[in-house]
Amino acid sequence: EDLKKQQKVADSSDPYSTDPERHPALRVNSLKPFNAEPPPELLTDNYITPNALFFKRNHLPVPRVDPKTYKLEIEGLPRGPVSLTLNDLKTRFPKHTVTATLQCAGNRRSEMNTVKQVKGLNWGIAAISNATWSGARLRDVLYTAGYGPEVAAKARHVQFEGLDRDVTGTTYGASIPLGKAVSEVGDVLLAYEMNGEDLPLDHGYPVRVVVPGTVGARNVKWLGKIVVSEEESKSHWQQNDYKGFSPSTDWDTVDFKSAPAIQELPIQSAITQPAEGAMVDRSTEEVTVRGYAWSGGGREVVRVDVTVDGGKTWHIAQLQGSEKEQEPAASPPTGQAWAWKLFEVTVPLPAEAQELEIMCKAVDNSYNTQPDTVAPIWNLRGVLSNAWHRVKVKINEDSEE
Amino acid sequence: EDLKKQQKVADSSDPYSTDPERHPALRVNSLKPFNAEPPPELLTDNYITPNALFFKRNHLPVPRVDPKTYKLEIEGLPRGPVSLTLNDLKTRFPKHTVTATLQCAGNRRSEMNTVKQVKGLNWGIAAISNATWSGARLRDVLYTAGYGPEVAAKARHVQFEGLDRDVTGTTYGASIPLGKAVSEVGDVLLAYEMNGEDLPLDHGYPVRVVVPGTVGARNVKWLGKIVVSEEESKSHWQQNDYKGFSPSTDWDTVDFKSAPAIQELPIQSAITQPAEGAMVDRSTEEVTVRGYAWSGGGREVVRVDVTVDGGKTWHIAQLQGSEKEQEPAASPPTGQAWAWKLFEVTVPLPAEAQELEIMCKAVDNSYNTQPDTVAPIWNLRGVLSNAWHRVKVKINEDSEE
Ligand SMILES: [Mo]
Ligand SMILES: [Mo]
Repeated sequence: EDLKKQQKVADSSDPYSTDPERHPALRVNSLKPFNAEPPPELLTDNYITPNALFFKRNHLPVPRVDPKTYKLEIEGLPRGPVSLTLNDLKTRFPKHTVTATLQCAGNRRSEMNTVKQVKGLNWGIAAISNATWSGARLRDVLYTAGYGPEVAAKARHVQFEGLDRDVTGTTYGASIPLGKAVSEVGDVLLAYEMNGEDLPLDHGYPVRVVVPGTVGARNVKWLGKIVVSEEESKSHWQQNDYKGFSPSTDWDTVDFKSAPAIQELPIQSAITQPAEGAMVDRSTEEVTVRGYAWSGGGREVVRVDVTVDGGKTWHIAQLQGSEKEQEPAASPPTGQAWAWKLFEVTVPLPAEAQELEIMCKAVDNSYNTQPDTVAPIWNLRGVLSNAWHRVKVKINEDSEE
Repeated sequence: EDLKKQQKVADSSDPYSTDPERHPALRVNSLKPFNAEPPPELLTDNYITPNALFFKRNHLPVPRVDPKTYKLEIEGLPRGPVSLTLNDLKTRFPKHTVTATLQCAGNRRSEMNTVKQVKGLNWGIAAISNATWSGARLRDVLYTAGYGPEVAAKARHVQFEGLDRDVTGTTYGASIPLGKAVSEVGDVLLAYEMNGEDLPLDHGYPVRVVVPGTVGARNVKWLGKIVVSEEESKSHWQQNDYKGFSPSTDWDTVDFKSAPAIQELPIQSAITQPAEGAMVDRSTEEVTVRGYAWSGGGREVVRVDVTVDGGKTWHIAQLQGSEKEQEPAASPPTGQAWAWKLFEVTVPLPAEAQELEIMCKAVDNSYNTQPDTVAPIWNLRGVLSNAWHRVKVKINEDSEE
């Protein structure tokens, strides 16, 4: 309610006054900039997350971009700068469609806070969502703009600049490795559609980068400029944020140059149902556990194990790689599994327990698996929180027994 | 001693009678077929493992192949079968050199045996080694033999057949995803040199496949045939072995079709010095810990953490990516970090302890990390054993204190 009021009183001196309306079911972590996640129990109702419920992670105010005058600038190529209109992107390049999961580096940060305080938005388990994106391939655009082998000999990165800016005029920025950008199988898009509609304002209208398998922060929204370069983006978010450190590194000792910028994310899974603290009925004698699992770098999730007895017995979950009513999707080529899998398994309730800890862990096709516990992966920015997910529920004994 | 005798009495009715001599320092896990690893304390003396000490993992007798009559057959391409001599491979294709670490899927299996018995050779921590391989790129050979986009539309795998065979005539076989085989950045070699010499007999003379980032079992030795195919290799080792399962899957319930063949390996590290059970001198007040770290899929190791206090404090190790006397190697392009890193860190001894458990864990540039413990990744074949490595040592108090 407070949040709504805050939104209403926004005025023109407030750079956030032009932010769009949002779905009231979203759980807001920060209003300005807007950062919100869907309720976990809604998240896995759909294989494709509806646009309105897709997690929102803005670093700055949402810019209002006129599609008629929109220009995408491309720099760093031997033939000189190139400028493309929205119409150019839609008509001069094949339209390519990819279903890809995006995850914020800070997803599940709140679990790290239980070990020791970290700096960052207190995300729950739903700073992750899955959508079908359409647009021009970045690869096609770069080749048309003059990219070739002689560029590859020097350049190593592709930088992106957003049209969103702070009060000093600094724009959001990030970069990805050149190899990912130009790979035939990298599927990097300059996307203008999300789930068959124009990109919503919160997701980068009119054009954003979608870098499948790569941390959300590199999927730059409201894309204004692309620079092919020997250097990574000089932005704060590339250089001094979104990096992982040892649990023993603190704010006095951290050297941001010592760690690589997060690109591909590690294997992840979490339980969305039952919710933490939920009541499970003893009379049903079983509990159905649902959740999501995903891995970065196009690595396919191949198994999710669930336990309700502290790991003595692991139950193998059913994996779902498309909407329930649809035919199961064919397995993508190795290395191009960009989308999550939903999982479900029904497990017998232990005879005696009054409380239950449910845990899950996923495995991808590189056979990487999640670490058992949070403390050893704790890091000062609270990113990359991918330990086994644990949910405690209560068992409601039948009163007539 | 017994092993040596066994070797001596070998006669011509023994298919293993033509196996080569081996270095006496190797720790033999099986003599026929020959399977052996170097002593861990020697393993990390060199960044490039000497050929004689490189771990040996043979599935069958070592075949004696005449280089003058050697033929490599290539099938499954539209222009029909192709046959190449050793001289063809050496002269018709550019010689490409790659430093790549190979690891057996069963490396560190002995630690899984401490949880519950598994089936397989009882490897310690040294079924992993690093070498510089030279040969023709598989990509170049396939393109020359008629590979093109119309093949990619149907085919998904590249199968390899060895010239080693069992008494029934069945040859060793394996396959890799087509995308890896033809990728410009996959660096798959038809190698004829190992560390600047002809391939040793035990390592596939005259030609083996080297598939950087991929489990040892797919790096087929004594290569006789390549088949581009819609199907994976039908071999036992591709279909019913070298796969990972849930800890709750046993030999009565296992369905080998339910898991993917191991290809890229997960993040790994282990401590080679001090050795398990070693005595550490209290008077030095510190202990130097050395080991190796490596990850599959070309993911670069970016950090190794070491603890001597059960994980309360983690010490960040120095990483070494080339021989000590050499200039540090430049970081490879993202996704092409095929070689291990050696690590070293000197840690203060805790004041009171008489025994110490040293543990290490590594992180790669996808920020995947090793699982904390073995039991949750236990599997019936004892493969993919990559939990934190733990070494217990004793602290020798100065008697004059
Ligand atoms: Mo993020
Ligand atoms: Mo192996």
